[in-house]
Amino acid sequence: MINTDNTMNKQSLSESKLADMTPHEFREIVRHGEWSDVNTNVCQGRAQANLVIVPKSLAFEFLLFCHRNPNPCPVIDVTEPGDYHPRFSAPDADIRTDLPKYRVFKNGVIIDEPFDIIQYWDEDSVAFLLGCGTNFDWSLRAANVQYRYIGDYTTNIECVPAGNFHGCMVVSTRLFKSSHDAVRAIQITSRNLAAHGPPIYIGNPNDIGIKDLYHPDMFSFNEPIQPIEPNEIIMSWACGVTPQTVAQSSKTPFMISHYPGHMFVTDKLSEELAIL
Amino acid sequence: MINTDNTMNKQSLSESKLADMTPHEFREIVRHGEWSDVNTNVCQGRAQANLVIVPKSLAFEFLLFCHRNPNPCPVIDVTEPGDYHPRFSAPDADIRTDLPKYRVFKNGVIIDEPFDIIQYWDEDSVAFLLGCGTNFDWSLRAANVQYRYIGDYTTNIECVPAGNFHGCMVVSTRLFKSSHDAVRAIQITSRNLAAHGPPIYIGNPNDIGIKDLYHPDMFSFNEPIQPIEPNEIIMSWACGVTPQTVAQSSKTPFMISHYPGHMFVTDKLSEELAIL
Repeated sequence: MINTDNTMNKQSLSESKLADMTPHEFREIVRHGEWSDVNTNVCQGRAQANLVIVPKSLAFEFLLFCHRNPNPCPVIDVTEPGDYHPRFSAPDADIRTDLPKYRVFKNGVIIDEPFDIIQYWDEDSVAFLLGCGTNFDWSLRAANVQYRYIGDYTTNIECVPAGNFHGCMVVSTRLFKSSHDAVRAIQITSRNLAAHGPPIYIGNPNDIGIKDLYHPDMFSFNEPIQPIEPNEIIMSWACGVTPQTVAQSSKTPFMISHYPGHMFVTDKLSEELAIL
Repeated sequence: MINTDNTMNKQSLSESKLADMTPHEFREIVRHGEWSDVNTNVCQGRAQANLVIVPKSLAFEFLLFCHRNPNPCPVIDVTEPGDYHPRFSAPDADIRTDLPKYRVFKNGVIIDEPFDIIQYWDEDSVAFLLGCGTNFDWSLRAANVQYRYIGDYTTNIECVPAGNFHGCMVVSTRLFKSSHDAVRAIQITSRNLAAHGPPIYIGNPNDIGIKDLYHPDMFSFNEPIQPIEPNEIIMSWACGVTPQTVAQSSKTPFMISHYPGHMFVTDKLSEELAIL
């Protein structure tokens, strides 16, 4: 379901048309300002990616942070300094313009939420494309796994620090009524290491610092959460919003990210990045 | 089988004793100069690691090289600059002394092959521990997969470059008489992403630039290779010696590596690092 306040987009592009677009086509409409909304359901089957851009002086520490925290930060592609084309995953794309919306952090504070970042990009910029949970939701649906996504939450699970990068993990939480479906979800997401891999927590979310499941901390679909039943298995996966909370915790001098829910669409099929 | 010219070692330590040692015990005897030989068969079941050390100024490019070439260079652990303890995989170890033998490269040329690297280590040094094929040989034997290892070869397969790091992949080659065993070997090594993952080539090694299988380029067990039979399936896995040929191709200003066959032994069980 596409959640948008932008009525023009809602009117002009049907959900099925968005799902059937090629990544090249979708990036074109984004680049030309014709789409600036949530894009979780576009270009079905293609690997979507979260974005982090840091100056080269922070690139080693951030890449090391990703290596040490592969669940929240599975690295798909890293550009050479100053090169805004992701050569591995979408060579004709432009990182500066092809995401629907961005966030700009200075000393850990959000200073801008622009629709392109041409003014912020320079020859020192290194872009990291990190795997995204959208991909495994497709895999779960393709396998007829029944579940409901309820939201994203900040936990008290400390990421493994690297240099000055530190902070708590954000998770996305899903509920399963059937043990079989829960097991299938673990199996399927274990194949998708580039999309956060298997869950990092099974069970009572209070244990990882989530106080109230009914009030997600992060982007959600703005629909009230139906009551959680005692027989539902609660599983939480690492979430790609984590680097944004890390930027805030670490007071990172400068970072650009995607705006939550507004991802980069690569040319890669999600299955191309799966293991086994 | 331990291949060694050091008769003292041969006499004083039986193969079974070496296999049963804890990583801590083995590193102790190495640190005290009591073992300086090939160590493929020590501390059975523990993840062994190849070593690369570069100055911090090259650390981002080398980590990026590893990310882009995960088969030859699967990253297990990266130390903070100047810290010679691998905090994730063996916190009480000392990278400078705990490998049986090292190689030191300057501008891509081997300038020393010492038994410790205390004189070369400084506060700027960053150590990378990279997964090692020894681990999947154990996994194959544990599953009763029948095969023979014949040697390591330089191929014409270009690694994906990162910064100035570039060069061809080295592979280790194994022969299988049974299709079932070959399939099992692919399945089992696919689980061991930290130990080079699945084969990168199945078939005629001439296709990847290996001219003569009977004459491996790299470290081998110095036994003549028995004739290769037409029904044998030839599979080649990326090899952890690759960074050493990359240092030579790239004329890397400064790099330290393990000496081939003389690996670091981590505290981690090989199975701890497996996926699925």
